[in-house]
Amino acid sequence: MGTPSYIGDWTEWEKDFSFYNETKVRFSETDAFGHLNNTNAFVYFEEVRLEFFKKAGLMQQWLAPDSEKMIVVADMHCDYIKQVYFDESLNIYMKIARIGNSSADVHYLVKNKNGENCLTGRGAVVQISKETGSSLPWSDDDKERMNSLQ
Amino acid sequence: MGTPSYIGDWTEWEKDFSFYNETKVRFSETDAFGHLNNTNAFVYFEEVRLEFFKKAGLMQQWLAPDSEKMIVVADMHCDYIKQVYFDESLNIYMKIARIGNSSADVHYLVKNKNGENCLTGRGAVVQISKETGSSLPWSDDDKERMNSLQ
Amino acid sequence: MGTPSYIGDWTEWEKDFSFYNETKVRFSETDAFGHLNNTNAFVYFEEVRLEFFKKAGLMQQWLAPDSEKMIVVADMHCDYIKQVYFDESLNIYMKIARIGNSSADVHYLVKNKNGENCLTGRGAVVQISKETGSSLPWSDDDKERMNSLQ
Amino acid sequence: MGTPSYIGDWTEWEKDFSFYNETKVRFSETDAFGHLNNTNAFVYFEEVRLEFFKKAGLMQQWLAPDSEKMIVVADMHCDYIKQVYFDESLNIYMKIARIGNSSADVHYLVKNKNGENCLTGRGAVVQISKETGSSLPWSDDDKERMNSLQ
Repeated sequence: MGTPSYIGDWTEWEKDFSFYNETKVRFSETDAFGHLNNTNAFVYFEEVRLEFFKKAGLMQQWLAPDSEKMIVVADMHCDYIKQVYFDESLNIYMKIARIGNSSADVHYLVKNKNGENCLTGRGAVVQISKETGSSLPWSDDDKERMNSLQ
Repeated sequence: MGTPSYIGDWTEWEKDFSFYNETKVRFSETDAFGHLNNTNAFVYFEEVRLEFFKKAGLMQQWLAPDSEKMIVVADMHCDYIKQVYFDESLNIYMKIARIGNSSADVHYLVKNKNGENCLTGRGAVVQISKETGSSLPWSDDDKERMNSLQ
Repeated sequence: MGTPSYIGDWTEWEKDFSFYNETKVRFSETDAFGHLNNTNAFVYFEEVRLEFFKKAGLMQQWLAPDSEKMIVVADMHCDYIKQVYFDESLNIYMKIARIGNSSADVHYLVKNKNGENCLTGRGAVVQISKETGSSLPWSDDDKERMNSLQ
Repeated sequence: MGTPSYIGDWTEWEKDFSFYNETKVRFSETDAFGHLNNTNAFVYFEEVRLEFFKKAGLMQQWLAPDSEKMIVVADMHCDYIKQVYFDESLNIYMKIARIGNSSADVHYLVKNKNGENCLTGRGAVVQISKETGSSLPWSDDDKERMNSLQ
């Protein structure tokens, strides 16, 4: 099906990933076709993304009871390369491909234990005001926190 | 396996149900054994329970941003009588079997379109303080709202 | 954020939708930010897509125990336009934008009860061999079944 | 609320657990009340249970394409002791409290990183015939495999 447009040169794209999370496919995440249901790819993507934002100290700010800001997903995309099955151990890689004014473009790569590519993906997240829903620019400190992790 | 202890006399137990919700089994709710994954029974139970509390006007109180109270599940039980499959239409019945001081014992019965019993269940919910986590007694109005629906 | 590339002219794109499913946001589909968790968009997309393939008589073929073919998702995309909350009633529209040799490009549009656009999306599905994983061309009858529903 | 009847003497009950799984609460597992949604307790229970049956070599038999047997849940129960939140690390303990003719009664205990009890539970699983749905007795080897793990 060709390389997705967000990837460009695969070798270049792939070598930038360092941050990752490990997960194991749960039985409740499979479906009657016997494989991982497609919807759970996005569960894995969210898990590693929020782990990243937690390590960056941003998730704590958004979750604070009196916080005026939060993070929302603007779009999400997944390309399914290889079927995944119950009990497979997966490495869920992510990187921030671009930091915008109030958004960040996050890329994802999922490999199985044999190092085979199973899923790739991307999606933008945006920092918004809880009250108005308008986007809220990153501070310099926010950007530094994101950059320092990759 | 015998009748669960919360049921007692089946005929008596069954005839008390009137409040219900319809649902259709999603493919993402099945698992690699080809049937509805057991964990989704509790998703169906919660759906009809909160529909009930919404119709009673209580859910709105708990969800209000400045609400000091909320509802939590104290325990949940499900008995699996008959396997359920993708695309089955189910009626999810519930009744409040007993209203306590700050809790309610909710019973569940799930039937398929042929009227066959697929699942039964029960579980207590408790109204608590968001701040302290302590139980908060129902008002007379709360009790009336629950009783008026069944 | 501009109109996603799969939409092109919004007015043209929107008027082609006729097949849809209704759903109501479950509490278990919300998250600690108080809104519908982004991952459930894909659950809704799958639900309406398989409802379509069931009405077309294809899902039954894929699910038959001795079936040699099945359907898989090749890619999935969602654009999040408007936050969605517990208990909202949604109309999940879909259409087959293009039928390929063994694939179909499916588009999605989710509206709330006020007719406001909440989510749009697209994704390709491919008919494959259960044994080899290779793509299997649609028959003329398959294509006719899909075309007859929209 | 008193000790659930399946526990009996807490100290005795608790000291029998040795098999466990670690998990971290995902954001998509929380709900709009800000805590772990009650339905996910059963996802955690299933995860550790099937990990046990995999280590015992039984899950592989049930999942084999030509297998005539499978495992189903007969009933499930959870007692919610302490609210759990996003990103908490949990230890999900399980033990087989009793092996029947074709069933097993599984007990569960979930502790957070401070060693506090958050959830307890129990539920019976039954080995059945895929074709008839009737229960299928454990072999001596099956029982030995289960006993050897605890």
